[in-house]
Amino acid sequence: MKRNVLIIGAGGVAQVVAHKCAQSNDRLGDLHIASRTVAKAEAIIASVHEKQAMKVAGVFQAHAVDAMDSAAVAALIRRTGCQIVINVGSPFVNMTVLDACIETGAAYMDTAIHEDPAKICETPPWYGNYEWKKRDACKEAGVTAILGIGFDPGVVNVWARAAADMMDRVTGIDIVDINAGSHGKYFATNFDPEINFREFTGTVYSWQGGAWQENRMFEVGREWDLPVVGKQKAYMSGHDEVHSLAANYPDADVRFWMGFGDHYINVFTVLKNLGLLSEQPVKTAEGLEVVPLKVVKAVLPDPSTLAPGYTGKTLIADFVKGEKDGKPVEVMIYNSADHKEAFLEVGSQGISYTAGVPPVAAAILVAEGTWDVGTMVNAEELDPKPFINLLNEIGLPSRIIDGQGDRLLSY
Amino acid sequence: MKRNVLIIGAGGVAQVVAHKCAQSNDRLGDLHIASRTVAKAEAIIASVHEKQAMKVAGVFQAHAVDAMDSAAVAALIRRTGCQIVINVGSPFVNMTVLDACIETGAAYMDTAIHEDPAKICETPPWYGNYEWKKRDACKEAGVTAILGIGFDPGVVNVWARAAADMMDRVTGIDIVDINAGSHGKYFATNFDPEINFREFTGTVYSWQGGAWQENRMFEVGREWDLPVVGKQKAYMSGHDEVHSLAANYPDADVRFWMGFGDHYINVFTVLKNLGLLSEQPVKTAEGLEVVPLKVVKAVLPDPSTLAPGYTGKTLIADFVKGEKDGKPVEVMIYNSADHKEAFLEVGSQGISYTAGVPPVAAAILVAEGTWDVGTMVNAEELDPKPFINLLNEIGLPSRIIDGQGDRLLSY
Repeated sequence: MKRNVLIIGAGGVAQVVAHKCAQSNDRLGDLHIASRTVAKAEAIIASVHEKQAMKVAGVFQAHAVDAMDSAAVAALIRRTGCQIVINVGSPFVNMTVLDACIETGAAYMDTAIHEDPAKICETPPWYGNYEWKKRDACKEAGVTAILGIGFDPGVVNVWARAAADMMDRVTGIDIVDINAGSHGKYFATNFDPEINFREFTGTVYSWQGGAWQENRMFEVGREWDLPVVGKQKAYMSGHDEVHSLAANYPDADVRFWMGFGDHYINVFTVLKNLGLLSEQPVKTAEGLEVVPLKVVKAVLPDPSTLAPGYTGKTLIADFVKGEKDGKPVEVMIYNSADHKEAFLEVGSQGISYTAGVPPVAAAILVAEGTWDVGTMVNAEELDPKPFINLLNEIGLPSRIIDGQGDRLLSY
Repeated sequence: MKRNVLIIGAGGVAQVVAHKCAQSNDRLGDLHIASRTVAKAEAIIASVHEKQAMKVAGVFQAHAVDAMDSAAVAALIRRTGCQIVINVGSPFVNMTVLDACIETGAAYMDTAIHEDPAKICETPPWYGNYEWKKRDACKEAGVTAILGIGFDPGVVNVWARAAADMMDRVTGIDIVDINAGSHGKYFATNFDPEINFREFTGTVYSWQGGAWQENRMFEVGREWDLPVVGKQKAYMSGHDEVHSLAANYPDADVRFWMGFGDHYINVFTVLKNLGLLSEQPVKTAEGLEVVPLKVVKAVLPDPSTLAPGYTGKTLIADFVKGEKDGKPVEVMIYNSADHKEAFLEVGSQGISYTAGVPPVAAAILVAEGTWDVGTMVNAEELDPKPFINLLNEIGLPSRIIDGQGDRLLSY
C-alpha cells in the first residue's frame, strides 16, 4: 500500500495524468506536480479545479524542480511524503528521477525510454543502455519501477502479455499506432517535436528471426485494415516497446508500425535531408552554435495548443500470433480514443490522453499493492488482468478481435 | 580614366570578379580584394595565380575589412589608391560601401539591391528605400555609382535598354531566368541561401498597367519555350530590376520570371510554412535567440562548394515588346552559360559566373571613361552598346532573336 503521488513534468501528458489522478484521489491520496517552470504546473492544477476533477477534497500542490538534479527530486519526494512518482517529464530526466526514487524508496513509473540529448538511436536493446543497469539497485532497495507504462510503450506491452497468456507459444507481435485525427494546422507534432523527430531520424530496429534487424525510416510500409479508422498506411518504426518485448518473447518477431500521411512524410523528409532534424549543433555564419532540431521545435506549434481544435480518432492495436494446442492462433487487441472527447474531459488531445491515463491506472494498482512488486519491470512482466480491467473503467477500454468476434476485453 | 580596383566580398561571385579582373588587369591596374575573413580573400587570389589568370604582372592583394564600417572601407580605398570599387559583398553592406565611395570619390558598383537584415521585401520601388536617396550626394560629389550591374539585375537592364532603343515605344519587358543545370545535391541554393530565400518569402511585386501589382510567390507560373534549355516553367518573382525598369519605362509592363523545379518549390514551401525562412528571431526552449533562416543557411551546402560537380546550362532572357513605325514588334535577347565551362575558366559555377563577369565589364568601361558618368545610375540609363560588345569579348555573349533569326547581338 502506497499513498501520495508526485507528477514530474507539466506538458500535455502531465495535464492528463493530473486530471486522472484527481479523478481517483480517493485511492491515491495527496497530489503534487513539479516542473522546471512552476507556472506550468500551477496552470494544470487550475484546469483540474476548473473541471472540478478532484473526486474528494484533498491536496494538489505545484512545485518548481530541476528534474536533472536527482538530489532536488529526492528532497521534494521526502518533503511531500509522496510514495509514488509518475515521471512524465522529458525523456532526458528518467535516470535522475529514478535515482531519486531508489534513494527514497518511492515507486517509479515513466512512459518513454531514457535518452541522452546528444545521442539518437543507441544500440539495441535500448533499455539496456540506461534503465536495466539500475535493475539490481531497484531490487536491493525494494523499489517498484515500472518502465514505459504509457500507451505505447505501456498498454501495448500489457496486451502482448495478455495475448501471450492465451497461447502456448508466441511467434509474432505487431503493434500498430494510427492517429486518424486532424489538428487543422499545416504541420504539427502531437507531442514534443524534439522527442517526436528523434524517434524517426535513426535506424529502425525490429526483432525478427531471433535477431535485431535494421531498416531506414519509411523503408518498410504496409496497409492495415483496422476497426474504427479503416485502411491506413503504417511504416515500420523504431519504438521503445520492441526493445523489452524482444527480450521477453525472443522467439517472436516484434515490430512497431506507425501511421503517417504523405504530408508528414514529405515535411519530415525535407527537414531530415537538409539536416534540420540533427541533434548535433551547427554554427551560423555569425558564429552562434545552435542545435537545428531545437530551432525546428521552436517554430512548430506547441502540441498543447492543438487540443481545442483536434477532431477524429486514434487507433492503437496489437496483432499477436502464436500457437495454441498445436494450431496457429491470432488475436487483435485494440483501443480507439476520440480527440474531442479527450479535450472535453481533461483539456488535452487524444494522443496525450492515451499516454497519460495508463500511468495513473498503474499508480492506482501500485497504491493498492497489486502491482507494487518491489523491483524494476517492463509492463509485460506484470499481471495484465487488473490493469486492463481498471483501464476499462477509467477511460481506455481494451477490445479484442479473435475467432469469437469484436468485444470488450475484461477479466 | 580611373585605375585600380577594390573588390569587396570573397564569396562565389567575388571569385569570378577576381579572375575576370585579373584577365584584364592591363586595363584595370592594381587589384585588391577585402573580406571580413582575410583567408577567404587570400584563397581567391591563390586560385587566380593557380590559373595564371593575371594578364600582365601586377598587384593583387588581400585585406581584412568589416564592410559595415564605412570609415574602414574609405581608409582602405585611400590606402590602396583604388578608384573603382566592385561591391560583391552581402547586400547588407551596400550603403556603407557606397558612403565610402562618396567620401573618397571612387566609382561604385554592385550586383544586388541593399537590404536591411531585419526587413524583407520593403515597399516598391525598392531602390527608393536606400540607393536613390544617395543620388544627389553622388551627383554633387561627381561619383559614378552603377547600381545592380550583375546579370539580373544588370545585363538584363542593359538588354531592355538596347531593345527599347530599337523601338518607338516599349509596352512590355519580361525577364526570364532559368538554371537548367544540376548540382547533384538533395538541395542547395546557387548563392547565399539567406539572400536567395529572402527574395521569395515576401510579396511578388510586378509593374503592370502602370501600377505596382502584388502576388504571392508561385502564384503565377508560365511555361516558356526557350533556346538551349527548351520548355521551362518559370514563376513571377520579385526582383531588383523590376524596380528601376518600372521607373524608366513606366508605360511598359515589367515582370521577372524565375525558373523553379517542383523539388525546389516543395522544399521552399515546407520551410516557409513551418516558419524556418523567417528573418525574425525565435527563442528555443533553452532560451537561445536565433534567426531560423540563419540556421537553414548553416545546414545547407556552401554554394561555393557546388562548382566542381555542376553540369548543364543557364539561360537568361529579356522578352521586350513594343511598337516601331506603328507596328507591334518583339525582340528576345538572351545568354546561355555553361556551368562546367565556368568552373574550368574561373573555378565557379555558372550562376556565379553570370553575376561576376558583368561588373568587371562595367569596371573596364569606367576605367576607360566610357561609363564614368559621375552620378548614380541604374544599368538601363547607360549606353548599352560598348557593354554588350565587351561582354561578347570576355565570356558572356548576347544573342538576339527577332524577325531576322537567332544571332549574336553586337554593335
